[in-house]
Amino acid sequence: MTELQLIELIRKLARNPGIGDDCAIFTPRPNEDLLFTTDQMIEDVHFLRSHLPAAIGERALARSLSDIAAMGGTPRFCLVALATPKGHEKWIDGFYRGLLRLACRTRTTLAGGDLSHSEKIYCDVMVCGSVARGKALRRSGARPGDRIYVSGRLGKSWDRPIRPRLDFGRKLLGRATSCMDLSDGLSLDLHRLCLESKVAAQLDHIPIARGSTLDRALHGGEHYELLFTLPPRKRPPRGSYRIGSIAKGTPGAIRFQDRVVVPRGYDHFSNA
Amino acid sequence: MTELQLIELIRKLARNPGIGDDCAIFTPRPNEDLLFTTDQMIEDVHFLRSHLPAAIGERALARSLSDIAAMGGTPRFCLVALATPKGHEKWIDGFYRGLLRLACRTRTTLAGGDLSHSEKIYCDVMVCGSVARGKALRRSGARPGDRIYVSGRLGKSWDRPIRPRLDFGRKLLGRATSCMDLSDGLSLDLHRLCLESKVAAQLDHIPIARGSTLDRALHGGEHYELLFTLPPRKRPPRGSYRIGSIAKGTPGAIRFQDRVVVPRGYDHFSNA
Repeated sequence: MTELQLIELIRKLARNPGIGDDCAIFTPRPNEDLLFTTDQMIEDVHFLRSHLPAAIGERALARSLSDIAAMGGTPRFCLVALATPKGHEKWIDGFYRGLLRLACRTRTTLAGGDLSHSEKIYCDVMVCGSVARGKALRRSGARPGDRIYVSGRLGKSWDRPIRPRLDFGRKLLGRATSCMDLSDGLSLDLHRLCLESKVAAQLDHIPIARGSTLDRALHGGEHYELLFTLPPRKRPPRGSYRIGSIAKGTPGAIRFQDRVVVPRGYDHFSNA
Repeated sequence: MTELQLIELIRKLARNPGIGDDCAIFTPRPNEDLLFTTDQMIEDVHFLRSHLPAAIGERALARSLSDIAAMGGTPRFCLVALATPKGHEKWIDGFYRGLLRLACRTRTTLAGGDLSHSEKIYCDVMVCGSVARGKALRRSGARPGDRIYVSGRLGKSWDRPIRPRLDFGRKLLGRATSCMDLSDGLSLDLHRLCLESKVAAQLDHIPIARGSTLDRALHGGEHYELLFTLPPRKRPPRGSYRIGSIAKGTPGAIRFQDRVVVPRGYDHFSNA
């Protein structure tokens, strides 16, 4: 199969005859901000070749959609860069079917991408979302006294499909003072949110997923729930769990039931 | 070095304190279309570890900028996904310095990205450009009788830095009937342009770069000159070379001095 034939196959799967120019063209609506995020999935780092290609495709898109959810956005389109060994046409077909199933469910257009070959399978999914101008949820707005919440129990295992919290994120628009998604673990991600907001945090209670442990809920990655803060009198959306409060103190410092928490979630570059 | 420290380093190099949320935020201007493209650079496929990291960073951005140029766009921002083996902080620093030098020269903001680790070095650069609404140059507008041009001599060697033809592309706005950049070789790329436009092409003369050969100019990849068509009476920008004419015939068929040309530029998925 040639690259042209493969692109033709993807065009048909995506039902987007527009793919074919050097760039994808997008016409923004008035009074919207656009959100951009990109996430890599690499064989033997984020998945194994033995995993189902459709599950990998779905997950690759889901991780970027979760970033859009974290800012209260609505997904608009994605670009998919994919590299596989030669002769992987069937794998590519499965990958795109999984990705496009989730794209269809979340109304995310596949607008373009890049195909290449490589020894190991590699993909990078860029998603563009939109949000009313100036309204995007940021990491930097948490203030002392705010309550800290998560959108669900933490510590679920890797193999469960990610459900990007898009509806949940939109409900936080105009209410949450800060928000992010939990991709690298609560302790590390809350540390990052507190650094951006120049505040400290006090954790009281962590909701643990069935069959998981406190350690996994606190430090394990890949939850893809939303972590957010609300001022004391604002009500959280249904299904939220209050886990603590924002406090004055050393920016980024976290305490859990009065003990210091050392952030040790997933860091791609530490050697720990 | 931790991921946070590495991101801090990149923030400083990019002089963009905005990097830090789950997504980059972008506010479009009224009456513009946005252009999106993404290009992968993979170790042992597109470059070797022995190449200078700054040259690889520059080239990674240049290839995507060339796609923006091909549609007459002006670059606005980029997202950079990069995966390297652990302990490559110095390599990453060099890569970003090269990339940011070209970003600065072309006024492309580094808006965000993703860092991961991997056995081989991998990167994917997404660039967003803008163009007056409805004015982007496409591949699909070439008509029988149009003249075919390229923006420079063909067949240059890989190691020369790519100069994305951004100014040249903008000069074609409102004049060219079709345009694309030559990334995979003239024979294959012209074939693609003719397929999109549903026309055939007759080549008369190929301008060959000094020290190169006709075969390399016709079939070699990575030129990054623009290939475009103009109606008979429109003048091309200075520095253009006329190489032939668009004709009626089987869509995608190409003849050079009355012989059939079989497209055989670089195809990532053919086994030829």
